[in-house]
Amino acid sequence: MTEQAKAPNSPGENDNPVKPRIHARHVVAQSRLFTVESLEMEFSNGVQRTYERLASGGHGAVMMVPIDENGQVLLIREYGVGIENYTLTLPKGAVDLGESIEQAANRELKEEIGKGANQLHYLKSMSLSPSYMKSSIDIFIAQDLYEESLPGDEPEPLEVVAWPLNKLDELVSRADVTEGRAIAALYMAKSWFENNQGNMDKTASIEK
Amino acid sequence: MTEQAKAPNSPGENDNPVKPRIHARHVVAQSRLFTVESLEMEFSNGVQRTYERLASGGHGAVMMVPIDENGQVLLIREYGVGIENYTLTLPKGAVDLGESIEQAANRELKEEIGKGANQLHYLKSMSLSPSYMKSSIDIFIAQDLYEESLPGDEPEPLEVVAWPLNKLDELVSRADVTEGRAIAALYMAKSWFENNQGNMDKTASIEK
Repeated sequence: MTEQAKAPNSPGENDNPVKPRIHARHVVAQSRLFTVESLEMEFSNGVQRTYERLASGGHGAVMMVPIDENGQVLLIREYGVGIENYTLTLPKGAVDLGESIEQAANRELKEEIGKGANQLHYLKSMSLSPSYMKSSIDIFIAQDLYEESLPGDEPEPLEVVAWPLNKLDELVSRADVTEGRAIAALYMAKSWFENNQGNMDKTASIEK
Repeated sequence: MTEQAKAPNSPGENDNPVKPRIHARHVVAQSRLFTVESLEMEFSNGVQRTYERLASGGHGAVMMVPIDENGQVLLIREYGVGIENYTLTLPKGAVDLGESIEQAANRELKEEIGKGANQLHYLKSMSLSPSYMKSSIDIFIAQDLYEESLPGDEPEPLEVVAWPLNKLDELVSRADVTEGRAIAALYMAKSWFENNQGNMDKTASIEK
């Protein structure tokens, strides 16, 4: 690759490149939870490649940034077998068949933090790993919370930890805060409040 | 779960919960790129569960937020077979055997944006999906860039797109900006500049 090809473009200069064609796809490995697909691709320049990716089962997923009446985000501390450690992160879960993403968001909030939300503000659909995984997750800010619990499927009770959203940098600097999508969602939520409802230092700024 | 169990704790109240024990682990599915493990777990309350997760091969991964002399972040536009679409994201890649993470960061920058960095500032180790994946990625801010290209393994040239870091909210609102870890890294970088080097509106603020 020449250096010339690396000169940065203006934003949006080439927003619609020609997608590669998928000539074939098949499942190459499967377990209870994971399905690996192999795809035979041909790029618009004629280059052919075989890629593997994780298929995404199910009906989508949701992640919530629940904000209480004191401007604190309600985090959960849960064990992640992937990283073999406890982590402080946001409530999230899979969308059940027949549920809207808003219904899933409220159900997961009730299961994981024992609260429902009268207000859900949609922030973003995020991908996990665009090159290797199909999965995406819809992110909401949840406000105007009320007490309501539903039984979850956790092996042990989730601890709920309140943290002032205006001290986000301190939170993110913690070693037990690691999940990329949660960090992204927290910053997006903080930015949304700053842009839409004034200073997060004021409790009133996030009330209805 | 009772509502009482969901009352939020103060930050850090229970920072060292007792980890579950892993009684057994074995590989249940494998492909060229992916290895799925099954783990027999016992939580400290005696509850037993079997979990699946993706093992992580290799020697780690790095993601860079490269900032040019005009305060612009240099993004790449690349095709992601996972989401079957082009996406604007940050340069990243796997650490090769024997490389330090700083060496890997500089090599990937040269391969993906045609520039090296005289300054790397370590931001964070992020996990991808703590419950299901072992993988983590080390995030750097890359500054004081210089021209140097290395051949990459991309099937087609990566387009490099410059975007002012002080217009991050606009960038993140784009439909082709989806990767959670990249969004998190961009906000962390912006916050780092705001906290350490003054207003990003001033070009000089990010010069050495």
